[in-house]
Amino acid sequence: MRTRFVLHEVGPRDGLQVEKRAVPTATKRVWIERLLDSGVDVVQVGSFVNPEKVPQMADTDELCRQLAARPAGKGVLSGLVLNEKGLDRALLCGVPLVCLGVSASDTHSRKNTGMDSAEATRRIVATAKRAVEAGRAVQVSVQSAFGCGFEGPVPEERVLSIVKEYLGAGLRRISLADTAGHAYPEQVERLYGAIAALAPDAEPACHFHDTYGLGMANVWAAMRAGAVSFESSFAGLGGCPFTKVAAGNVATEDLVAGWQRSGLRPDVNLGALIEVARSVAAFFEREMPGRVHRTGPVPTGPKNVEVPA
Amino acid sequence: MRTRFVLHEVGPRDGLQVEKRAVPTATKRVWIERLLDSGVDVVQVGSFVNPEKVPQMADTDELCRQLAARPAGKGVLSGLVLNEKGLDRALLCGVPLVCLGVSASDTHSRKNTGMDSAEATRRIVATAKRAVEAGRAVQVSVQSAFGCGFEGPVPEERVLSIVKEYLGAGLRRISLADTAGHAYPEQVERLYGAIAALAPDAEPACHFHDTYGLGMANVWAAMRAGAVSFESSFAGLGGCPFTKVAAGNVATEDLVAGWQRSGLRPDVNLGALIEVARSVAAFFEREMPGRVHRTGPVPTGPKNVEVPA
Repeated sequence: MRTRFVLHEVGPRDGLQVEKRAVPTATKRVWIERLLDSGVDVVQVGSFVNPEKVPQMADTDELCRQLAARPAGKGVLSGLVLNEKGLDRALLCGVPLVCLGVSASDTHSRKNTGMDSAEATRRIVATAKRAVEAGRAVQVSVQSAFGCGFEGPVPEERVLSIVKEYLGAGLRRISLADTAGHAYPEQVERLYGAIAALAPDAEPACHFHDTYGLGMANVWAAMRAGAVSFESSFAGLGGCPFTKVAAGNVATEDLVAGWQRSGLRPDVNLGALIEVARSVAAFFEREMPGRVHRTGPVPTGPKNVEVPA
Repeated sequence: MRTRFVLHEVGPRDGLQVEKRAVPTATKRVWIERLLDSGVDVVQVGSFVNPEKVPQMADTDELCRQLAARPAGKGVLSGLVLNEKGLDRALLCGVPLVCLGVSASDTHSRKNTGMDSAEATRRIVATAKRAVEAGRAVQVSVQSAFGCGFEGPVPEERVLSIVKEYLGAGLRRISLADTAGHAYPEQVERLYGAIAALAPDAEPACHFHDTYGLGMANVWAAMRAGAVSFESSFAGLGGCPFTKVAAGNVATEDLVAGWQRSGLRPDVNLGALIEVARSVAAFFEREMPGRVHRTGPVPTGPKNVEVPA
């Protein structure tokens, strides 16, 4: 197993995009700057989608501009792009890592893009190539890679055929997203194992929702099977649009707490991540699915307790 | 990896024991009978502790008697015993599987028994032998096996020295309990690997709390490392007395949903487990940590959805 994994915080995008209550741009900016300062490698600022359809993401361009102007510090910004128009905006506001994606499920793909998965893949590969030509780092993803909230099971060959198109286009940072939370550890190992066999030089990323309780088990399966980059969300925010229940992404601070139990990523400031997660929970005034922002870190030494003789 | 794991529901004991609101005996009985009917292998009815200290467990003897008299059906009953007096009661009311335990942490042990861990181990081994002589099946556990809410880290040698005492006494069903939720997957693999090396014929059991979000990742690590029996709690009930936050056991119905995604235990009626978990959540009138009782099972086929052309 690798001894270092990349942490990609997607809370400001995947966590917030389904929230009705508008988060002020200044609040998002504080959260993102704290995440970057605490040692998160990449923070996804938002998505370049139609602001009328997703009002919470309307300030993505402005946020990217503000954050790009900050004093040089740790961490990289990313933004999600789903079409050519989105890429135009991403290029204009200077986000260094462009994330693009397509669904492996035809139904899901048509809902999001009006195209079936094969057609949407051709389009997104072309868009990704343009991002590369513009000098941006690019990550491409397969959404609904482990199952679809509309279709149920998604054939693994379908997922791998998209991966092959990405690899054929020279794209090496490939994320499999468990949009609906259907993934289970053996499936995770099969798919990342298949990617490693196709392209040992690929940098696979993963994105798990905890909808059915397997989020963290899938993370550990992906760690074993060669995934390099892990997408997570502060406080475990991020509703599942299919199940309509509160079960979001794997929580960033839970992931880091687990990694640090295993000796991994001691450089990340877990206490600072917990503070951000608590701010997010306080903002939305409800209980969040993450654990560690409630408990604090695992104690590493004795508590001062009175013990009966 | 094994192709069949044993499911040991401990919700009626570990889930309920910290709850203030008294559950009527008849309600517990309905939950337990439904669990047994749905294919759970073992249900822990309660603990034989001082009813003045743990009023929620005061009806354990009566419940065992009632359930022992039910028409022969599926499943086995277990009860938790922490001392000689508890064993007397367990033998009187006819519970077929006696679970006994001791903490690997001296502080935790003194809090529970007034003895340090070594002395408490000698006592519990003697009690376990008496249970065996009385013809009962016996499982012995090491509490705080992965860390202690009072002491922090617990040396793995200390845990294994208790395991060796159990093995030396001819006890083969040995459970490691992550009482405070400190376990992480690599540690789980080390300890179960060590047990397998000590006694290939042992039947290791595990008991994980999800206090810090690693419960299910630890389950999968234990599955790989040779654990046979898995303790879990309906709806993920079971507060952690150390952290004082709602983060209980691994949820039974989440565990079974995960297993069934992996092709394991298709014989268990997941729908029935979900109904029990929903009854438990409704009884306590609050949100429970488990996921699947809220979402329902992972869909195995398409939903009837309208898709734009």
